[in-house]
Amino acid sequence: MPSHNNMTTRTHVDLTKLLTPSSIAIIGASTNTTSISGQPLRLMLEVGYAGKLFPVNPRREEVQGVKAYPNAQAIPEPCDVALVAVSAAQVPQALRDCGEADIPFAVVLAGGFAETGKLGEAAQKELDAAIKDSGVRVVGPNCIGVANIATRAFCAFGGALYDKSLEPGPVAVVSQSGGVGLSMMAHAHARGVDTRYLVSCGNEADLDFFDFCHTLLAQDDVQLILAYLESSLEGKRLRELGKRALEVGKPIILLKVGNSGAGRRAAGSHTGKLTADYTLFKATFKEGGFVEVTDLHEMADVAKLVLGGRYPKGRNIGVLTGSGGWGVMVAEAYERNGLQLPLPTPETAEKLKAVVAEYGSIGNPIDTTPVYGKQHTVLEIIVNEPNWDMLHVRSAGGPVLKEWLPNFLNVAKRTDKPIIIGWSPVPGLDLDIKHELEKNGIYCASFAAEAGRAVGLFTDFAMKRKQLLERGQKLAQRPIAKQTLDLAGSGALAEHVSKQCLARYGIPATKEVLLSLAAILALKEAPVSFPVAVKLASPDIPHKTEADAVRLNVKSLDELKAAAQAVVNGGKKHTPDARIDGISVQEMASGVEMIVGAVNDPHFGPYVMVGLGGVLTEVLHDVSHRFAPVTPDDAHDMLAELKGAKILEGYRGAPPADVEAVVDVLVRLSWLIHDHQDRVGEIDVNPLFVRAKGKGVVAADALVVLR
Amino acid sequence: MPSHNNMTTRTHVDLTKLLTPSSIAIIGASTNTTSISGQPLRLMLEVGYAGKLFPVNPRREEVQGVKAYPNAQAIPEPCDVALVAVSAAQVPQALRDCGEADIPFAVVLAGGFAETGKLGEAAQKELDAAIKDSGVRVVGPNCIGVANIATRAFCAFGGALYDKSLEPGPVAVVSQSGGVGLSMMAHAHARGVDTRYLVSCGNEADLDFFDFCHTLLAQDDVQLILAYLESSLEGKRLRELGKRALEVGKPIILLKVGNSGAGRRAAGSHTGKLTADYTLFKATFKEGGFVEVTDLHEMADVAKLVLGGRYPKGRNIGVLTGSGGWGVMVAEAYERNGLQLPLPTPETAEKLKAVVAEYGSIGNPIDTTPVYGKQHTVLEIIVNEPNWDMLHVRSAGGPVLKEWLPNFLNVAKRTDKPIIIGWSPVPGLDLDIKHELEKNGIYCASFAAEAGRAVGLFTDFAMKRKQLLERGQKLAQRPIAKQTLDLAGSGALAEHVSKQCLARYGIPATKEVLLSLAAILALKEAPVSFPVAVKLASPDIPHKTEADAVRLNVKSLDELKAAAQAVVNGGKKHTPDARIDGISVQEMASGVEMIVGAVNDPHFGPYVMVGLGGVLTEVLHDVSHRFAPVTPDDAHDMLAELKGAKILEGYRGAPPADVEAVVDVLVRLSWLIHDHQDRVGEIDVNPLFVRAKGKGVVAADALVVLR
Repeated sequence: MPSHNNMTTRTHVDLTKLLTPSSIAIIGASTNTTSISGQPLRLMLEVGYAGKLFPVNPRREEVQGVKAYPNAQAIPEPCDVALVAVSAAQVPQALRDCGEADIPFAVVLAGGFAETGKLGEAAQKELDAAIKDSGVRVVGPNCIGVANIATRAFCAFGGALYDKSLEPGPVAVVSQSGGVGLSMMAHAHARGVDTRYLVSCGNEADLDFFDFCHTLLAQDDVQLILAYLESSLEGKRLRELGKRALEVGKPIILLKVGNSGAGRRAAGSHTGKLTADYTLFKATFKEGGFVEVTDLHEMADVAKLVLGGRYPKGRNIGVLTGSGGWGVMVAEAYERNGLQLPLPTPETAEKLKAVVAEYGSIGNPIDTTPVYGKQHTVLEIIVNEPNWDMLHVRSAGGPVLKEWLPNFLNVAKRTDKPIIIGWSPVPGLDLDIKHELEKNGIYCASFAAEAGRAVGLFTDFAMKRKQLLERGQKLAQRPIAKQTLDLAGSGALAEHVSKQCLARYGIPATKEVLLSLAAILALKEAPVSFPVAVKLASPDIPHKTEADAVRLNVKSLDELKAAAQAVVNGGKKHTPDARIDGISVQEMASGVEMIVGAVNDPHFGPYVMVGLGGVLTEVLHDVSHRFAPVTPDDAHDMLAELKGAKILEGYRGAPPADVEAVVDVLVRLSWLIHDHQDRVGEIDVNPLFVRAKGKGVVAADALVVLR
Repeated sequence: MPSHNNMTTRTHVDLTKLLTPSSIAIIGASTNTTSISGQPLRLMLEVGYAGKLFPVNPRREEVQGVKAYPNAQAIPEPCDVALVAVSAAQVPQALRDCGEADIPFAVVLAGGFAETGKLGEAAQKELDAAIKDSGVRVVGPNCIGVANIATRAFCAFGGALYDKSLEPGPVAVVSQSGGVGLSMMAHAHARGVDTRYLVSCGNEADLDFFDFCHTLLAQDDVQLILAYLESSLEGKRLRELGKRALEVGKPIILLKVGNSGAGRRAAGSHTGKLTADYTLFKATFKEGGFVEVTDLHEMADVAKLVLGGRYPKGRNIGVLTGSGGWGVMVAEAYERNGLQLPLPTPETAEKLKAVVAEYGSIGNPIDTTPVYGKQHTVLEIIVNEPNWDMLHVRSAGGPVLKEWLPNFLNVAKRTDKPIIIGWSPVPGLDLDIKHELEKNGIYCASFAAEAGRAVGLFTDFAMKRKQLLERGQKLAQRPIAKQTLDLAGSGALAEHVSKQCLARYGIPATKEVLLSLAAILALKEAPVSFPVAVKLASPDIPHKTEADAVRLNVKSLDELKAAAQAVVNGGKKHTPDARIDGISVQEMASGVEMIVGAVNDPHFGPYVMVGLGGVLTEVLHDVSHRFAPVTPDDAHDMLAELKGAKILEGYRGAPPADVEAVVDVLVRLSWLIHDHQDRVGEIDVNPLFVRAKGKGVVAADALVVLR
């Protein structure tokens, strides 16, 4: 895929020694095993870290039974990581010592730096200097550390790490909150999704969220990342990360918080960082690579589906149920989450008739209610149903499920379609069945809403992954080559200059003429085609509507003359000594009124947006965003996302609007801002009138603002 | 509360013998213990039903070791219930036998009746006749039966009933799907919410969902109902049920499905019944009494809160956290669900400063991150914070939680505010702590989103319960007495007659005059105040806009004359021989354009609706509904529900709109349709122009349609 982005790419850091250290120095190791400075050593001794541990404590010969050293330089062997567990004031010296001792990484646990606002400003400055001087790459400060579940290298603290049942899996956890990071790991583990690496980012004085994610994506022993993100202004790096995740097919399942209200207030006070508007995060998530979830159990559910390894080829699901009620619940849950439930092909329906009793239901859902014990026969028939990319089976639990499990697995193994099975589990029971199913990539879901949500999100990712190559090819087909534009000066360009810029990129605008009142009163025919807008042109009257100096939808020559007189009267009454340049008579475009725009965001880069104008855009914020450049498919998706999209299908008896022309404008506009992002800050086309299908669009007003 | 409803109330049935039978006849009892006809006897023998069991099987002396009888009449003792486990064809005779034997209730399991569509029509007819003839009150057919968990009277089948850990609690389950009913009971049990009665409604040939719910609400041993509803046209009974639930303070926690798409299709094929539009169900749920949930775990969560018995007095919650990240997640989850997070009072903040370290955060959330082990001291300070109606505490789990539990409980017991505590539980561990907390009405939640959702729904119910009396008093204060209206004839009333009806109820409308073209051309002054709308009045031109026979926003006498000429020209061009009554010159109202309406729904009764008109109403369906009559508070809530509500605050620099006047119109309109529901079918006021605050509203068009 050709790269169309001028993103600032930081060199990726080799974090091998940090993530899998052979030897660890613990600076400030304490004998108090419940304190933060005592926990990591206790923990590693308890869980059996096989590498070497070097406690540093100037006041002791040994700590928790391990020989201690007065400082990092005194450690007789090279260390991969220093766990810095001293108080904030002592951290800079500790880092300098690590530098002296050639320890490449340090994990700093203490809080009291930039995250505390003004209070920690001075401490942060000293910390930054120490990082720079020492050359040590730092995790934190104000973090709970870094843990490798496989080697039990726990440069970290926290209750969840004491869980002896933890086993390494193909998952990495990267979190801007230590507490949430531990919870993510714990909840995922409870769901059978096992973490190998846990990284708490802290206040990111040096290494940050993106460094960790990029490195972990590149590791063979990581298949997905569970991530928690509170705040960031690094939009371009976020987008780059998402792209990378999509390319390597390893989703970053992300909980993004701090988006509004008290949450945003709390996130601000938690990390002390600014964050960009949520809109642009959402646009980033739509580029693919990220799966945005709203809670930890959803996160674990999606991870379970990813690790199951069964990727759907489309959005169609068939539901098989033994309970009519469950069929309804499951069907609704999938539809709410963007999946479709088409009916089976006639061939399949025919075969089903022989099995499902007369008063069962052969449709989607297939309700076998009265046919006990024939579910695997039904499954056998539907497993290759071409109309269905996925299957959901609602089963009775307990003994019934146990009985048909072997047959079920036999059939399930013959397909790589995702199969979801749901039953009402009794706590503590059925766990063997669940394990057996999950081993075969079958997704077990107790609740309809949860299954719907997780499968919907997983399918979104699968579809983006599937379309990745194709999208790249489509992006390579520009609708127009890069055009030269006259973008001298600064600030906003005049309307006609703005319209010229659009025209260079093939975006049409309305015609207008400027005439004197006398000239209009003498007109014998329309200067531009009716209906027209009549506006007084005066440098002294910027707000024409307030001055009663505008008439819209003027339809005949007589009315034009009356209107021209009226706007002059209105203007004179409003501003008696106003200079009058003339009267502007503009083609009144008609059609569906839309807003199309492009913004060159300083953090995320250029994007295009589209909305249906008026209250929909301004009050309901019914607007869709995508980063530039976009493909026609992207533009179609943008339109489909609008809550008011139905307006384009023909509202109040209007004919269907020229959607293809809007798509074309969005694509061209996206190339315009992409090509000229060094100069263009913002483009507004408002309104863009969309005529009936095949009749095109026309920009009635346009504004290009230079950076 | 005075009753303002002419609802059709069915006599409530005494179901004591059905729900708690002392003796049960099992018609068609089978020796095959895995078959549906064999399961109930096996089940009751296994779980130890203490009443008498009388299997009926003409081919056997005994069934499963219990003496059998050839028919119901042969049973030597009176039976409270007959469990009818024979095939569809044998059911009518079985019911007649039960009638002969004076058995008051029968539970019919077999399917094959109306729920199978055409196929079962004849069988249903015979069934209906047998019900009528026998006088037996029937549950089902096509159900899984009725179970009393306390007495183990299981006139039912289904795997979940074999769970020996089931214990009776203060909960009843009523379900239109047997499978979902069993799942509801099982999932609630797993959440520590125990069911006493389980009723599967089946196809409701006789007793139905409402009969069951009403009876169960009246029982002292039931504190709430978990219900599943697929379809119903009985809107008035549903509303009546909700009101009753609110009055007795026992919520019906309801999963309503079959609302759209494949779900609705499946529900139709499952129950074979029609159902009303979901909109009216939603309006019913807003009346209170129902708590609408979207999945079974949410259902159990809300039940847990209800049974905890701590009702919030308002919507304000304070969050205490030891993890900044969790604080953000929890805060956002509550805000998403209609709760508020105000800051603590200065007094509380002052006290907190002494406990929370300098770089903790004293706000909402309170983040004690650096202060380990002081959470109960903080809790002690905030428990009586007047700004907070509820408290959420995020805690570390395991040993930390165990340690501070006694202190926590001590503080918690001193308040009746809801307290929610969350930690990351390790599966199988912490259960004793959870039990101890829940015993004290503390709600334990692992996930932020779940807690937010459940607490939000519970708070909605609590607020409605709190406002019940007050609302009744407000409803008693009519803004206007019942007016006599001239409602002769049928169909739609003319615009001016419709406007007169509104006027009688104090709802103002625009002025208009009908003039000839000559009269207009001769005008020396405005006939109604400018701006005006100019419309050709012709019985031959119903669609004026299409005929170019309308001019809006005409602002001066000259323009009026040009416009009058133009609409005549337009009309003549469009329909050359059109009869012309004159030209209507109407006051152009201005302001925010709204739609207000009232409909007398045949199933649910009269209601009012409000929307912001145009695309918001027609495309986005941004409309709010309430049943009539409404209070000013209800009307305010309706407006607040509109997604476009911000428009009323002053959009594009407009002054804030006269919301009180809109509220007044809604209240008056609701009394109009309430008072005249015997005659009025529908009222449309479109548009209603809402002027600036204090300036009132005016109906620009109105239509009253008689029933």
